[in-house]
Amino acid sequence: MRIILDGMGGDNAPAAVVEGAVIASKEIEHEIVIIGQEELIQNELNKYRYNPKKISVVNAREVITNEEAPVRAVRSKKDSSIVRGINMVKNGEGDIFISAGSTGALLSGGLFILGRIQGIDRPALASVYPIVGGTPSLLVDAGANAECKPNNLLEFGIMGNIYMEKVIGRENPKVGLVNIGTEAAKGNTLTKAAYELLEQSDMNFIGNVEAREVPKGVCDVIVCDGFTGNVVLKLTEGLAWNILQVIKKKFTDGVKAKLGAALLIDKLSELKTEFDYSEYGGAPILGVKGPIVKMHGSSSANAVKNTILKGIPYVEEKVVETIQNSVLEIEEITLSE
Amino acid sequence: MRIILDGMGGDNAPAAVVEGAVIASKEIEHEIVIIGQEELIQNELNKYRYNPKKISVVNAREVITNEEAPVRAVRSKKDSSIVRGINMVKNGEGDIFISAGSTGALLSGGLFILGRIQGIDRPALASVYPIVGGTPSLLVDAGANAECKPNNLLEFGIMGNIYMEKVIGRENPKVGLVNIGTEAAKGNTLTKAAYELLEQSDMNFIGNVEAREVPKGVCDVIVCDGFTGNVVLKLTEGLAWNILQVIKKKFTDGVKAKLGAALLIDKLSELKTEFDYSEYGGAPILGVKGPIVKMHGSSSANAVKNTILKGIPYVEEKVVETIQNSVLEIEEITLSE
Repeated sequence: MRIILDGMGGDNAPAAVVEGAVIASKEIEHEIVIIGQEELIQNELNKYRYNPKKISVVNAREVITNEEAPVRAVRSKKDSSIVRGINMVKNGEGDIFISAGSTGALLSGGLFILGRIQGIDRPALASVYPIVGGTPSLLVDAGANAECKPNNLLEFGIMGNIYMEKVIGRENPKVGLVNIGTEAAKGNTLTKAAYELLEQSDMNFIGNVEAREVPKGVCDVIVCDGFTGNVVLKLTEGLAWNILQVIKKKFTDGVKAKLGAALLIDKLSELKTEFDYSEYGGAPILGVKGPIVKMHGSSSANAVKNTILKGIPYVEEKVVETIQNSVLEIEEITLSE
Repeated sequence: MRIILDGMGGDNAPAAVVEGAVIASKEIEHEIVIIGQEELIQNELNKYRYNPKKISVVNAREVITNEEAPVRAVRSKKDSSIVRGINMVKNGEGDIFISAGSTGALLSGGLFILGRIQGIDRPALASVYPIVGGTPSLLVDAGANAECKPNNLLEFGIMGNIYMEKVIGRENPKVGLVNIGTEAAKGNTLTKAAYELLEQSDMNFIGNVEAREVPKGVCDVIVCDGFTGNVVLKLTEGLAWNILQVIKKKFTDGVKAKLGAALLIDKLSELKTEFDYSEYGGAPILGVKGPIVKMHGSSSANAVKNTILKGIPYVEEKVVETIQNSVLEIEEITLSE
């Protein structure tokens, strides 16, 4: 397997990316290709001892930034690490492309270069959703599609279900639909219709899930439109951050509090890691004809390493093909009915 | 002023409602009328010393539960505390109706009995949104309208702005639109169009607010459709609850942790009260021709008292009339342009 890693994406690139690749390469047998401005990347690589048979560099002179309009950037910057990297997956020179770069450019690149899986109307960003005191859920769509049709939500469920089972390793995942009430008749036009479709599927659909239940980990795959998904994910990050800040402030306010906090230092650092979901890898762009994984822009070397490790089952378990077959099966059943 | 209080609504009714009324009546000069099953309410009242000139009971034999279909319940149960109470506001026998009962029944009752304020297309539920380590925001719509048009979101902003200024007492409130990006062009069809309308208004519109920023209190009035509002509110409740549970578990795990927690006991209870927004009163149903306030179903006597106290500026500051005049003014400007 050849893992193509974007050396230029993210706030800590190329340093964190290169370091993550070096660490990962010691744990796996596969080949890692870092794509980007060769000199920069090679300079970073030279700081480590590494096996040049397992880590190599491919030059790509251009860089797509987060500030650029994604569609235009992908169309015009043919020699960017993102466009070149996705093309390598398309041409069989690589098996998976991993990047901490622009989500929009990765989505557009996936769509234009690899294309959609037949039968999938809208590819989606699937994000690991942290469950404090529990194992994480997978949120689909985390923000790729601000506007959705009921069928898109069914597809998000199908794709999330397969990824959760094959890559995260959760058996028979519970699939839930984010809604404003638990009864089937609750919600807006979109969720009411999506409920019907999800219920008719052969997934382990547990029905509507109110937002209050989402952080408790009641379902493994959280299905919603990309607007709602983005709100759920960002609100969770913002609120958790805010609560931790207030705790920090309160626990350092006065001698007695400081003493108490000192005794709780282990527990407090445990609490902080509850929100650190970097060990679960990045966010796959599901529904395009090849594995692309988006990492958080501020990914550490450790997060890069974990994303590389999680990329292996993504390829080996043939998630893309499984999604393709699932969708074809549904189409056949629908046609034969 | 005559405050009409629903004696039958909520998990702790009539006990908490009656107790809250008794406490409030000692702090205010206004008259409180508790409506509901007379014998039950009178029995509760008899547990306290109270001034019968300031607290009286009006009999209403029927009760609308949360499980009932709101529209049907409001249409058929003419002698319910909710229908009778709202009718008292309509007929001038009361100035405001406060209830911990079914949100749907209060909305339907408000619409059918009082009617919409002229120029307001969709009344909304405005909910106080807790800001940990800060003063709360107001979220409109918190769940009354699962489907919205851009103009509805403008109205939510106008109404929330007036309520925040007149009742909560925040000067020149900052109004923000929940969206999935900060730029004007971000979002779905609804938010893009609503942005334009809000920007053209004479409110202190600060633009799009990402969900990550909402818990930090960046705006005083949080505008969104009712589906998103419900997700924001419920997710916040669920996540905060979950984090507090995990803290509790971690801080009682082992002798050292327990000792640390004992030293932090004041700070921990402060942290808990950060989420207790009962002091800010209930959630007004904005846009109907009379003040109706929905309290949380599990309202304590203290929450009931605070809702009564916040009801006074709601009436005295003529919020309903101010909304009416604001909307008329906008219509006139639009017509004359």
